[in-house]
Amino acid sequence: MILKENERIDDLQLNNLKIIQNSKEFCFGIDSVLLSDFAKRAKKTKKVVDLCAGNGVIAILLSAKIDAESIVGVEIQEYSAELANRSIELNNLQDKITIINKDLKNIKQDIPSGSIDLCTCNPPYKPKNSGIINEKDSKTIARHEISCTLEDIIKEASRELNFGGSLCMVHKVERMTDIFYYLRKYNLEPKRMQLIYPKVGESANLVLIEGTKGGKPFLNMEPPIYVYKDENEYTEQIYEIYGMK
Amino acid sequence: MILKENERIDDLQLNNLKIIQNSKEFCFGIDSVLLSDFAKRAKKTKKVVDLCAGNGVIAILLSAKIDAESIVGVEIQEYSAELANRSIELNNLQDKITIINKDLKNIKQDIPSGSIDLCTCNPPYKPKNSGIINEKDSKTIARHEISCTLEDIIKEASRELNFGGSLCMVHKVERMTDIFYYLRKYNLEPKRMQLIYPKVGESANLVLIEGTKGGKPFLNMEPPIYVYKDENEYTEQIYEIYGMK
Repeated sequence: MILKENERIDDLQLNNLKIIQNSKEFCFGIDSVLLSDFAKRAKKTKKVVDLCAGNGVIAILLSAKIDAESIVGVEIQEYSAELANRSIELNNLQDKITIINKDLKNIKQDIPSGSIDLCTCNPPYKPKNSGIINEKDSKTIARHEISCTLEDIIKEASRELNFGGSLCMVHKVERMTDIFYYLRKYNLEPKRMQLIYPKVGESANLVLIEGTKGGKPFLNMEPPIYVYKDENEYTEQIYEIYGMK
Repeated sequence: MILKENERIDDLQLNNLKIIQNSKEFCFGIDSVLLSDFAKRAKKTKKVVDLCAGNGVIAILLSAKIDAESIVGVEIQEYSAELANRSIELNNLQDKITIINKDLKNIKQDIPSGSIDLCTCNPPYKPKNSGIINEKDSKTIARHEISCTLEDIIKEASRELNFGGSLCMVHKVERMTDIFYYLRKYNLEPKRMQLIYPKVGESANLVLIEGTKGGKPFLNMEPPIYVYKDENEYTEQIYEIYGMK
């Protein structure tokens, strides 16, 4: 396994899993780790799709956290998809994880409607019109709704999911109205939610949410996650999620 | 001021304000106190309407918390409206607070469209189909969506409010999807939100939300409110909101 320029192998602290990342590109953050941990509590987890898969971190983490038969990562950017494929090989997960290097708005041939149990997504957080300098920059594409909007993602997830299947997503709290509005619009009723707080007493900044296809309206709020205890010290909760306890 | 059977005068712990309550009827809870405190941070507060006014507690608390010119309480139940009127007299607030004893779906003649700055509401929390024994019981009407639904309330608030005016509401967390969905549907974009936690580490049970007429999508999350420190001891936050500090 030959690393290219600016690439490194990071340890995922879980079942000895590794990931190849490029320090000049978008590297995964705590949001992806929290999402994969949140998604493991979904009811059905056999057939899984991860939209906006990036370098494959969520697909790889999920392979160890749930008993999936198959995990398909969908990623539009060629280099990210290629990185993901090398990480999958590095972990010997070729039998479980497949990457589709396509626009998620164009995968009807690849993933039949109603065929998926669990869809995950750590989407671009920022709306298209918010301070973009270069629309072709790969980090900008990972962060802004340039290649797809939140509505595109939720619409596609709803198409793929079977009845009772669910979409688990992480997003910024400021986008919560969009999330709730589009989940209901596309028949993925929000059933479970968890908020991420930097510290006790501070405002939540991230939201984890599960929308279930055809679900009955009733939102279950899970206990909050507090990230830091002190300035630079993670809480026990975070150490547990990271598998360091 | 003569009290009727089962009635008592409670101290609102604010500017010497009092309220008449009936121990056999719906009495106000911490949710109303939290809502009136949340609403005082709304941008425009001159002309105010409180929907589902009940015994008038929110209108009376708001009279001391904001610099309103007028506060109109709308209450469908005759006895609650009458209780509210006696409390208004008891506090000498007849010049500021008026009660309309009508169905909120039928007040277009009383409150012109686009005439209000701030609308508040502590609505019935439970959907109509959830375990109702007696649809005519006054407590059931206060708690269940029998006389009006959440959509009715949000639709009416949107009609009354002027551009930039806002609806401040308290509700159960489990109904959050309905709240977000209908606020956006009726052009009251959620701009500010605060969650109420019984204790640090537990799940939030109540949500305070402000939707602004014609607002741009971006939700600001305020720091959480924790109600209890120990088993029966309020936090400093709550003592402050109750004006006991």
